[in-house]
Amino acid sequence: MATDGGPDKLSVVVFSGDVDKVHYALVLASGAAAIGKKVTLFFTMEACRTLMKPAADGTPAWRSLPVGAGRWADGGAMDDDFRARNLATFEELLTACPELGVKFLVCEMGLKAIGLTRADLRADIPVEEGGVVTFVTDASADGAMLFV
Amino acid sequence: MATDGGPDKLSVVVFSGDVDKVHYALVLASGAAAIGKKVTLFFTMEACRTLMKPAADGTPAWRSLPVGAGRWADGGAMDDDFRARNLATFEELLTACPELGVKFLVCEMGLKAIGLTRADLRADIPVEEGGVVTFVTDASADGAMLFV
Amino acid sequence: MATDGGPDKLSVVVFSGDVDKVHYALVLASGAAAIGKKVTLFFTMEACRTLMKPAADGTPAWRSLPVGAGRWADGGAMDDDFRARNLATFEELLTACPELGVKFLVCEMGLKAIGLTRADLRADIPVEEGGVVTFVTDASADGAMLFV
Repeated sequence: MATDGGPDKLSVVVFSGDVDKVHYALVLASGAAAIGKKVTLFFTMEACRTLMKPAADGTPAWRSLPVGAGRWADGGAMDDDFRARNLATFEELLTACPELGVKFLVCEMGLKAIGLTRADLRADIPVEEGGVVTFVTDASADGAMLFV
Repeated sequence: MATDGGPDKLSVVVFSGDVDKVHYALVLASGAAAIGKKVTLFFTMEACRTLMKPAADGTPAWRSLPVGAGRWADGGAMDDDFRARNLATFEELLTACPELGVKFLVCEMGLKAIGLTRADLRADIPVEEGGVVTFVTDASADGAMLFV
Repeated sequence: MATDGGPDKLSVVVFSGDVDKVHYALVLASGAAAIGKKVTLFFTMEACRTLMKPAADGTPAWRSLPVGAGRWADGGAMDDDFRARNLATFEELLTACPELGVKFLVCEMGLKAIGLTRADLRADIPVEEGGVVTFVTDASADGAMLFV
């Protein structure tokens, strides 16, 4: 039902593997969830890599993934810069999202397309697997959809 | 009218000419149409090139277009890899969409901006020409809009 | 309230600093506003640079920013080409938007992340500062949201 105060849900296709874009998707998701909106993040294709298990030394996988804007060498350099500027870091946002009720859905096709399986994803973020039909059905007629 | 089961329509601005992104737009479109959603794909700018007529030897134009993620040399290499992984190919999806009732709208301004005309587009995909007003008016208040 | 004729509002996250993408966001915004839709453009991250003050010689900042599609050397070259093709130029659209009632919102976090402040933005475009909560709350349940 249409209400004041904007859409009742955000349904976000997180397609890009650029860490700056995924970071912003997490900013949107956590911000919307914090004011009571339902949020689903649907990770697919390269974006799935941002949820991969850390390296042997514990370094999060996203730190070595690229950024789109090109001013930082990689996700790690971007995040260190954000931390220095007192902005929310990738790990802070990624941890906050499930706590705020954000649902993480991972695209089965997208995983397969880039040669990953569920076992490659970190275990501390609760994810469900699904397809585009799952995602579209999960969305709300009074919500908003974004493709990042 | 707001209903259960998500938005009643997907209205997608297909802006990027990256074949991996356009492929995913077709995945979303065909998946949503298969469960009874109305879908309009609004091709503009570089994305219009993915609908261009094939080369003299019959090779689809999109096969020589770039991919955004960089792991494949071009759209053709990506698609061959997808086929090997038993994923839906670009041509399969592009053919399925009109059969499932997906409407193809092509942006007049976008065509003009990249120096193409309707005559440059393949004839086997039924397209209508329009502008952003056509697209926005065609969308649904209870639908979702995406920019790919 | 759901009505005929599409969404009642467009709420656009303008994230990309690619001038071709921002140009198209302005095309969508001005087109939708011209037919009576409410429109909010929420500039963040690299996209904020397109609103920066001109150079000392008066050249708009966006002219030296990159384009994503790669066929033009920069935003200026793209815009000159568009002008030659009788398409709306960046400045024409940017000037038309506020006149048509398009609201410009700039993301506080996005500005900070790229080391800019409000004082770096041109004064002829009226902008408000806000965050993702401002943006999401400003959106409409019967509107559409886009991420550019």
